[in-house]
Amino acid sequence: MAILARARELEVAGRDIVHLEIGEPDFPTPDAIVEAGIAALRAGHTHYTPALGLPALRAAIADYYRDRHDVAVEAGRVAVTPGASGALLLAMAVLFDPGDEVLMTDPGYPCNRHFARLVEARGVGVPVGPETGYQLTAALVERHWGPRTRGVLVANPGNPAGTLIEAGELRAIHELVRARGGWLLVDEIYHELVYDAAPDSAAGLGDDVVVINSFSKYFLMTGWRLGWLLAPPTMMAAIDRLAQNVFLAASTPAQHAALAALAPDTRLILNARKEELKARRDFLLPALAGLGFRVAVEPRGAFYCYADVSELGLDAETLAERLLVEAGVAITPGADFGAHGAEHHVRFAYTTSLTRIAEAVERMRRWLAA
Amino acid sequence: MAILARARELEVAGRDIVHLEIGEPDFPTPDAIVEAGIAALRAGHTHYTPALGLPALRAAIADYYRDRHDVAVEAGRVAVTPGASGALLLAMAVLFDPGDEVLMTDPGYPCNRHFARLVEARGVGVPVGPETGYQLTAALVERHWGPRTRGVLVANPGNPAGTLIEAGELRAIHELVRARGGWLLVDEIYHELVYDAAPDSAAGLGDDVVVINSFSKYFLMTGWRLGWLLAPPTMMAAIDRLAQNVFLAASTPAQHAALAALAPDTRLILNARKEELKARRDFLLPALAGLGFRVAVEPRGAFYCYADVSELGLDAETLAERLLVEAGVAITPGADFGAHGAEHHVRFAYTTSLTRIAEAVERMRRWLAA
Repeated sequence: MAILARARELEVAGRDIVHLEIGEPDFPTPDAIVEAGIAALRAGHTHYTPALGLPALRAAIADYYRDRHDVAVEAGRVAVTPGASGALLLAMAVLFDPGDEVLMTDPGYPCNRHFARLVEARGVGVPVGPETGYQLTAALVERHWGPRTRGVLVANPGNPAGTLIEAGELRAIHELVRARGGWLLVDEIYHELVYDAAPDSAAGLGDDVVVINSFSKYFLMTGWRLGWLLAPPTMMAAIDRLAQNVFLAASTPAQHAALAALAPDTRLILNARKEELKARRDFLLPALAGLGFRVAVEPRGAFYCYADVSELGLDAETLAERLLVEAGVAITPGADFGAHGAEHHVRFAYTTSLTRIAEAVERMRRWLAA
Repeated sequence: MAILARARELEVAGRDIVHLEIGEPDFPTPDAIVEAGIAALRAGHTHYTPALGLPALRAAIADYYRDRHDVAVEAGRVAVTPGASGALLLAMAVLFDPGDEVLMTDPGYPCNRHFARLVEARGVGVPVGPETGYQLTAALVERHWGPRTRGVLVANPGNPAGTLIEAGELRAIHELVRARGGWLLVDEIYHELVYDAAPDSAAGLGDDVVVINSFSKYFLMTGWRLGWLLAPPTMMAAIDRLAQNVFLAASTPAQHAALAALAPDTRLILNARKEELKARRDFLLPALAGLGFRVAVEPRGAFYCYADVSELGLDAETLAERLLVEAGVAITPGADFGAHGAEHHVRFAYTTSLTRIAEAVERMRRWLAA
C-alpha cells in the first residue's frame, strides 16, 4: 500500500506510472451484473436482507458448487458476507478463542494475520518457499502444530505466488487438522482464476472444512464488497448471530447483482476476461525471466508472479523504490507478504493491459541495462 | 429477531401481521440517491476506493458538519465505513484492549456489546430508566467507572426509547471521561431524526470525541451498508490500517450514491419522510397511552416508543408472543435490549404506514378488551 500511495503522488506530479502492484482486476464489472444491480435498485431493493444473505443467492451459491464443482453443499451452510474480508472475520471470530493459533503461509495474504489479531487469536506464519510451491504441506503443518494451534488457513491458489496446493496434499492436511481437533480454512477467492486444469474445491473434502470465497476477483465485483463463507452446519447459528450483530447484512444491491454473476451467460464473459489474464501471465512470465527476475514455481492462477530478485544485486525494498521512482514501474516488495525471504522477493500483479505490461517490461529492461 | 422470524412464519402460513418490530424505515431509498448510484455503476465505478473512503465523500461529510451543525471537522478525521456497524467495529478495535470495559446503557442497542466482545473488551450495561430519560448521566458514569473502564458509549437519540441526552449532561460526561483518560463514543445514527429542536452534534465537543453515524436511517440507505466515523486525529492512521485490513473499503457504488444523499435538494425529500415519521409518532404515542402502555418519557427522535406494560398484567415476552399470534401485531420485548426492566417493557417501531399503525392499534384494542 505504501508503494501505491507513492505511485499516486508521482502521478499527481505528472509522472506516468505502470501499476503492477494493484491487487484487483482492471476490468469493470460486466454489464450483465451491473444491469442486475441497477434493476434491483430501481425495484426498490434497498432494505436489509437477512443476516446470512438473500435466500435466492444462498441457493444459487449452493447450485454453483453442484454445477461447477460437483459437490453437494446445503444452502444452509452458505453465509453471504461483505467481501471475503467479512467471511474471514466471521470465521476467525466464531472458530477461535483468544490465544488460539492459526497456521498460515509466510509469505501470504497480509490481512489474514490481522483478522486473527482482531479476535485476539494469533496468525503464525510458516516459512514456505519454492520447494513446496509456496504452500503448506501436511509435513509442515505437523512440524509447526503447537499446543495452542487450533487451525490452518491455506489459499488455493495463493497470494503472492499464484501457486496451487496439490489435491492429495490438501486432503492430508485436512485429515491431520481433523485428527487434532482443529479447523481447516481454505481461501478460494482466486480458485476460478486457475488458467489450466482447475483444482477441486475444498468444499468436497467434507462439511467440516471452512471455505472462503468472493465475488471480487473472477466475478469482477471488487467495489461491491461481496463474498461468501461455507461453514460447518454446527457453526451456522453462531455465524448467523455474529453476522447479525457485526454486519447486519451484506449489501442488498450487490447481492441482487451477484445472482446475475452466477448466471451461465455471464460465465462466458467472465471466462473471456480470464483468458485475457492468462495471456498477460504468458507474456509476463518469460519476460521477467529474461530480465533476471527468477520465478521459481510457475504461477498457475490468481494474477500474480512472485519473483526472486537476488541476481539483480539490490534488496527488494530498494529495487521496488528505485523501479518506481526511476523507471515508473510500481511493484510490491516481499515485506508486504511476510518475513520469510521477503528481502529478496517482489510481487508483480498483471492487473493492467498487455500494452502497459509490455511498456513496464521495456522500462525495466532499459533501467536494468543502464 | 426471534419475533421477526416468527412473524415471517405466520405470514408464510397466510396470516396478516402488522410489523412494529422492524428497525429500519419502510421508505425505499429516494430516487435522487438511487440514480446517483446507477450513474456511478454505469460509469464503471466498480473498483475499490481508498480504505477510508472516496476523498470527495469524506470532504462532503466534513462540509455537512460545517453546514448542518456549524462544527469544523477536518475531512482527515472522517472514515467512511460499511454501515455504522463498521464504524463501531473500527472504533472498538482501535480504542480498546482486551479486558477494557465500556459503559453503555441498559436498555440499549443490543449489538454494541457484541462489538466490544469481538475485540475481547467488555460492554458494561448501566441500568437506566425514565428518571434519566433512559440515558447515561455524568453521575451515573462516575458511579459505574471502575478500574478497567476505558470508555463510554452513548446514543443520541437512543434506541429503544428514542430519548435525548441533554447538551449540558453530554458535556459533563465528556469532561469526566476525558479527565479519566478514557474515550467518549457518541452514536448519532438517529440524530437527524429528532422531530423538534435538533440537538447539537457531539462533534462540537472536541476532536477527541468519537462520533458514529450512518447513511441508513435519515438518509434511507439501509441496504447499501454505509456509515461513517469521526475519530481523533491521532487515531486515524490506526483506523486506516485496520479498515484496509478488515474491510478493504466500503461499497463503491454506495459511496457515490451517498454524495447525492448529502446534496441540498435531497434534503427536502428526506425531511418530508421525517415529517411522515413524526406524524406516526404523534398518532401512536397517545394511542398507546389509551391502551395502557405507559411511555414514561416522550420519545424525541428515532422511530421507537419504549413502553412499560406492567399495567397490562402480562410479562413482556408473553405479551409480545400473544400479541403476535393472537392479534397479528409484532412488537419487540424488552429482553432484546438488555436486562434492566426488560420483563415489563416492549418497543414499538413506527416503521410502517400510518394506516397499518392504526390497524395495529385497533387490533391491540380489541385483543386487550377480550
